[in-house]
Amino acid sequence: MDLLLERALAGDKRSIARLVSEVERRESSSRGIMRMIYPHTGRAHTIGITGSPGAGKSTLSSRLIALLRSLGRRVGVIAVDPSSPFTGGAILGDRLRMQEHSLDPGVFIRSMGSRGNLGGLSGATHEAALILDACGYDAVIIETVGVGQSEVDVVKVSDTVCLVLVPGMGDDVQIMKAGIMEIADVFIVNKADRDGAEKVAADIKVMLDIVPARPWRPPVSLVSAERGAGIDEFLRNIESHREYLAVSEDGKSRRMARIEVEVEDSLKRDISLRASAAWSAEREGGICGRIANRETDPYTVASDILDRILK
Amino acid sequence: MDLLLERALAGDKRSIARLVSEVERRESSSRGIMRMIYPHTGRAHTIGITGSPGAGKSTLSSRLIALLRSLGRRVGVIAVDPSSPFTGGAILGDRLRMQEHSLDPGVFIRSMGSRGNLGGLSGATHEAALILDACGYDAVIIETVGVGQSEVDVVKVSDTVCLVLVPGMGDDVQIMKAGIMEIADVFIVNKADRDGAEKVAADIKVMLDIVPARPWRPPVSLVSAERGAGIDEFLRNIESHREYLAVSEDGKSRRMARIEVEVEDSLKRDISLRASAAWSAEREGGICGRIANRETDPYTVASDILDRILK
Repeated sequence: MDLLLERALAGDKRSIARLVSEVERRESSSRGIMRMIYPHTGRAHTIGITGSPGAGKSTLSSRLIALLRSLGRRVGVIAVDPSSPFTGGAILGDRLRMQEHSLDPGVFIRSMGSRGNLGGLSGATHEAALILDACGYDAVIIETVGVGQSEVDVVKVSDTVCLVLVPGMGDDVQIMKAGIMEIADVFIVNKADRDGAEKVAADIKVMLDIVPARPWRPPVSLVSAERGAGIDEFLRNIESHREYLAVSEDGKSRRMARIEVEVEDSLKRDISLRASAAWSAEREGGICGRIANRETDPYTVASDILDRILK
Repeated sequence: MDLLLERALAGDKRSIARLVSEVERRESSSRGIMRMIYPHTGRAHTIGITGSPGAGKSTLSSRLIALLRSLGRRVGVIAVDPSSPFTGGAILGDRLRMQEHSLDPGVFIRSMGSRGNLGGLSGATHEAALILDACGYDAVIIETVGVGQSEVDVVKVSDTVCLVLVPGMGDDVQIMKAGIMEIADVFIVNKADRDGAEKVAADIKVMLDIVPARPWRPPVSLVSAERGAGIDEFLRNIESHREYLAVSEDGKSRRMARIEVEVEDSLKRDISLRASAAWSAEREGGICGRIANRETDPYTVASDILDRILK
């Protein structure tokens, strides 16, 4: 394991992939990995990219990777697959576009499923991002479809959250409703050559005028990822946000909030394992049958188990 | 609280609504409610209805409610809202159709959000279903969009899981991929007057021939919820599945599995509260700053907290 870590920290992609697989499996060994990884983290800039299916996130990511590479930066990518029964396939197809970069030694691309592993999607994804950070990737892109709470949780662990919109999907209104405005640091209107793109950008700006002013006003840029137009400005916006985070109180409190989430996730996961073990032992004694007969109830049983394992 | 419970158990809709609100808030009082409710549960048949957005689930539910009411059954409905930034609005609109039943004293309809409450979506939804069961609803319909793990978890707590498909959405192929076949007990091809409906039904049957045979073979029925055609057969299929569950080993093991989930959910929720309290206390001491400086790491801190609270 020490050798594996050493190789990964030196940038060996196969070793990095193995570490990510370990944390993805969420076995107890992953805890040891994360302890050793953690001191090396804190240098990468994590960029979350989210938006509706069909908004062109993968094409946009691909363009961003190319631009970062041309600047000599190493780029890690975690593509979160919602593994939804209804959308899974289409998303995988889109991501083939990103594969053009996978042979580049300075790019590491990994797909992660979102089907409920113990500790949840955000836990494993965040740990994978920390591994890429420790292993010397300057930028870590987390790409996810903006559907469902777990996906929102993922982008929340990013330093800079980029929300991709496209004309003609009615997203502008939807976003206001759901309050996702609050987590977006950078807005991108993709497919800017389509009718209505300017209108979407204008609508976002109006919304930003309405909500209470915060120290960082999210920039809005028009992009055509397909044609490669507007990518420079997109990256400049990301970099501006990074600089803002580095010097502001807001940035400091976000770093602290991140750490809180890391501790809480870790704690909840450990404690769940312990609770499951205690329940496994209890279950042997036919307690389920007694609950089925309504002689007792699940809540009383849980409370009794807790009394036994907690100090 | 005793009076509230008494009124709810006697069928008073306002009292029932208040109990559901209590468990939805997931405060500690909800534990007491569930303990008192539980002995009265186990009579209702819980029907999960899931499928893609636009599959016509709400219209189908509405038809099913009308049919069940004509048979003199009391019906509870829990409409789970994914509260997704991208789909939230549309779904709420569809559900207005169901409201025609809300004035019927034999029908109780409740929308629940899926935004991550403590203990998760499935916990609160399942507890709400148990309340409706205890309060005398013969059928409890849980309607949810089949997107995301948490929604899949919800339908898993249903006695009979109904999967609604429509022609022209490519769902037939998607479903095979994602393994949702395994949780569907009844298939419905809605909008059966559209081209391709027979093909979807045939495809499902082919899939059922391919997967390893199980004692219950899910029936497939063609329905037009909009026109009210095929609803009788749909209900017959649900009833057949109910009878199967009542007499089979499969049914027994599902009831036991449900109980296990109830205990585990309750346990994890209680233990999370305890862990959060322990972490709150710890946090005061500037531990986040030490983690930020990489003097320690979140995993070690979590492990130390656990050592302190566990026997």
